[in-house]
Amino acid sequence: MFDAFDDEMRRRGLDTALVIGESTLGNPELAYVTGTLIPRGGIFLKRIGQRPLLVVSNIDVGSAKRGRIKNVRTYTDYDYEKLVKLHGRERGYIKFLDLILRSLRTRGDIGIYSRNEFSHLLSVTDSLRRLGYKVAGETDASLIESLRETKDPEEIDRIRDVGTRAARVVERTLEMLRKCTVSSGKLRLEHRALTVGMVKSRINVLLAEQDLMAPEGTVFAVGPSSADPHQMGIASEPIRTGVPIVFDLFPVGTDGYWFDLTRTYVVGKPLPKVKRMFDAVREVQARILNSMGEGIQASKMMGLACDLFEWRRFKTIRAILRGDKDATRVGFIHSLGHGVGLTIGERPQLSLFSDETLRSGHVVTVEPGLYEPGLGGVRIEDTIVITKRGIDNLTPLEKEFRI
Amino acid sequence: MFDAFDDEMRRRGLDTALVIGESTLGNPELAYVTGTLIPRGGIFLKRIGQRPLLVVSNIDVGSAKRGRIKNVRTYTDYDYEKLVKLHGRERGYIKFLDLILRSLRTRGDIGIYSRNEFSHLLSVTDSLRRLGYKVAGETDASLIESLRETKDPEEIDRIRDVGTRAARVVERTLEMLRKCTVSSGKLRLEHRALTVGMVKSRINVLLAEQDLMAPEGTVFAVGPSSADPHQMGIASEPIRTGVPIVFDLFPVGTDGYWFDLTRTYVVGKPLPKVKRMFDAVREVQARILNSMGEGIQASKMMGLACDLFEWRRFKTIRAILRGDKDATRVGFIHSLGHGVGLTIGERPQLSLFSDETLRSGHVVTVEPGLYEPGLGGVRIEDTIVITKRGIDNLTPLEKEFRI
Repeated sequence: MFDAFDDEMRRRGLDTALVIGESTLGNPELAYVTGTLIPRGGIFLKRIGQRPLLVVSNIDVGSAKRGRIKNVRTYTDYDYEKLVKLHGRERGYIKFLDLILRSLRTRGDIGIYSRNEFSHLLSVTDSLRRLGYKVAGETDASLIESLRETKDPEEIDRIRDVGTRAARVVERTLEMLRKCTVSSGKLRLEHRALTVGMVKSRINVLLAEQDLMAPEGTVFAVGPSSADPHQMGIASEPIRTGVPIVFDLFPVGTDGYWFDLTRTYVVGKPLPKVKRMFDAVREVQARILNSMGEGIQASKMMGLACDLFEWRRFKTIRAILRGDKDATRVGFIHSLGHGVGLTIGERPQLSLFSDETLRSGHVVTVEPGLYEPGLGGVRIEDTIVITKRGIDNLTPLEKEFRI
Repeated sequence: MFDAFDDEMRRRGLDTALVIGESTLGNPELAYVTGTLIPRGGIFLKRIGQRPLLVVSNIDVGSAKRGRIKNVRTYTDYDYEKLVKLHGRERGYIKFLDLILRSLRTRGDIGIYSRNEFSHLLSVTDSLRRLGYKVAGETDASLIESLRETKDPEEIDRIRDVGTRAARVVERTLEMLRKCTVSSGKLRLEHRALTVGMVKSRINVLLAEQDLMAPEGTVFAVGPSSADPHQMGIASEPIRTGVPIVFDLFPVGTDGYWFDLTRTYVVGKPLPKVKRMFDAVREVQARILNSMGEGIQASKMMGLACDLFEWRRFKTIRAILRGDKDATRVGFIHSLGHGVGLTIGERPQLSLFSDETLRSGHVVTVEPGLYEPGLGGVRIEDTIVITKRGIDNLTPLEKEFRI
C-alpha cells in the first residue's frame, strides 16, 4: 500500500528512500513507486513526511507523468550533463546524486532499492558513504517489498485483468484438446500425434493474443511427469488419456503484473486413485478458500491444509518434521501459496513457518496439490485477494476435471 | 569471452568472483556464468586460477549440470538448512556464505555481481565485510560485463538463431500488409481499417509462433510518429500509404539472448523527401558495414556515419557540439549502434564518445537513421558480429523499401 510509505519509513528509522533503475522493466521496485512504465528508468526519492520526487531524462517526462508521481524533474534540472563533462561519468554521477540529496536536505539514514547491476550500485553506495551519507541495507522485507505486499485497488484491478485473460488462454487450450481424436490412448490433432511441445507452442500464441507473456515458461506436465511439481513438461511427450495433466500458467501483462493459475485435467476416464486425489485437492481448496480472511495467520492456513489432507489419509510435507523423508516426494509436498503482484513470488508466504498474518489487500495463490511418483500429480490453484469479509477470487475459471 | 575470466580478474586485482541470483531469468550475470537456465538461481564462485563452483538447491542440480560449470554442489552440502535452523534466516545465510568462501580459501578482494534486490544484497555485503572479507564495487564495465562483451561462438549461434526467427516475423508481418486493400490512403484488412494496435497484436502472435517474446515492446511507428525514435507507435493510428513506417523489432529467446532489427517501409509511392532519406540511410549503412572490422575504433564508425550524412547535406547529432539545438530533433540524431547479447543494450557503444575498439566477437547493431519532424523517420538496423576479416551480418532480411 503506497499510502503506508511514511509509516514504513518511520518504522525503519529512514530519512530518505531512493529507488533507482535503468528501466521499470525487470525492476519491480521502480515500477511500483512510479506506477508507470519508464523505458530508461530514473531516480525516485522521498524524504519522510515529504512528497516524492522523480528524476528522469528529458524524453521520459511524458511517460513519467502518466504515473503516480506528480513532482517530475529531469537530469538536466540537476546539471547531470554538466557534472559528467566536468568530472567524468563516475564522479559526475556521484556529484549529481549528491546535488539531488542536498536539494532534499537529506540528513539521516538512506535506504536504496533497485535491481541494477550490483557491483556498480555498491560502488555508488560506497561513494555516497564517503561523502557522509548513511546508507544501510535491509534484511527480511525491504521498505518497498513491505509496501508492495498489500495491494491498492488499482493494482488488484490490474491483477484481475491478467487473470481474466489467463483464464481465456486455458479455455482456448482446452478447446484444442477437445478437437482431438484418440488413437491407442494418445491424442491426435489433424492426423498428427499431439505432443506437449505442440500444446505449449499453441499456449504461447494464445497468450500473445491476450497480450500476455510467460517469460518463466508454462507447466504442461502429463502423467508421471506431473508427479514432480517442478517439471515443466517434456516437449516430446504425447498427450495420453486417463492420466493427470497439470496445467500451471503464470503469465505477466505489459504493465508488469503477474497471475498464477493451475488446473488439472484428465482426457477420458481417470484412474480411480487419480480421481480420489482430484476430489481431495478440490475439497481441501474449497475449505481453505472458505476459511481465509483478514487477521488469520498464514501458517494456520497451511496447517489446516495439512490437517485436511492427513484426515483423508494423504501424506503431507509436515511429516518431514517427524523424519519421514518420503514427505518431500509423496502427498502434499509444497507450500499452500505465495504472494503475487509485480513478481510471481513475493510476500506473504502461506507456509508452515510463515510469520505473517493475512491482511486486506494481500493477493495470494491457494494451490493445494497431491503427488504420487510414477502416477502423477493433481494441483488446483487460484489467485485470490484477501478482503475485510473473506476473499475475492480473481480466477474466473471452472474447476472441471474430465475433458 | 568466458575464457578471459582469470585475465579479467587479474586486471582488477580480484581474488574471488561471486555471482548470485534467485533465478537466471532477469539476471544476465548469472545466466552468463552458468550458461544455462536455473529457475531458482544459485551461487557461482570462482577464485583466480581455479575452476568455478556452482551451488544450487537440490532440485536444480539437473538444470545446473546442463550448463558450463561441471563442479556443481548443493546448499545442503554447505549445511544451509542446518545453519538457518541454528542462527535464523539472515545470520544463517551469512554463515553459509562464509563456509563456502572459507572452503575456497578466499583471501583477497571479492567482486559480487547480481541483479538481486539491492538493499538485501547490500546488507549481506556489509555482513561479509564485518567478517573481514574485502568486497569492492566496480565502476564502468564490471568483470562479468567485460567477459560478456566479446561473444563465444556458441553465443553467436544463439543470437544468429534469434535473428533468423525475428526476420521471419518481419516477413510474415509484411505478408499481412500486402494482403490489405487501400481506401482513401489507409490500409484495410478483411473490410476493417488496419491500425497500429492490430499490427502489433499480430506481431506478438508471430513472435510466439517463433518462440520469441518482446518484453520491451515493438516499434511500429507510422508517418509523423516515426520522426521520434522513442515513439513505439500509437495503437489507434491507421496505416497510411506514402509515409514511412519504422518497424523496430527487439525480441528475446527463451535462452535469454536478444536481437535487434529495424526496417523502414512505405506502402505505395513515397514522398520524394522520404525516398531521399531512405536512399541516404541505406547507402550510409552499406558504407559503414563495409568499413567495420577488428581493431577499428567504435567512435570512428560513428564519426564516419556523421561525415557521410553531412556530405549528403543532412544534419547530424554532432552539430550539437557547435550549439545547434535542432541537432537533437532533425537528421541523424542518435548513436550508430550498441552491443547486443544477454541484454538489448550493452557494450560496446558505437557513439561519438565511445572509448572502445572493435574486437572479434563483438555483436553490435548498425542502425543509422534520419528524422524529419512532421514528416517521419527512416532507420535501417542490422545486428552483426565483428570478425577477424570484417563482419558477419546476422540479419537475414532484405532491405526493401516499398511494399
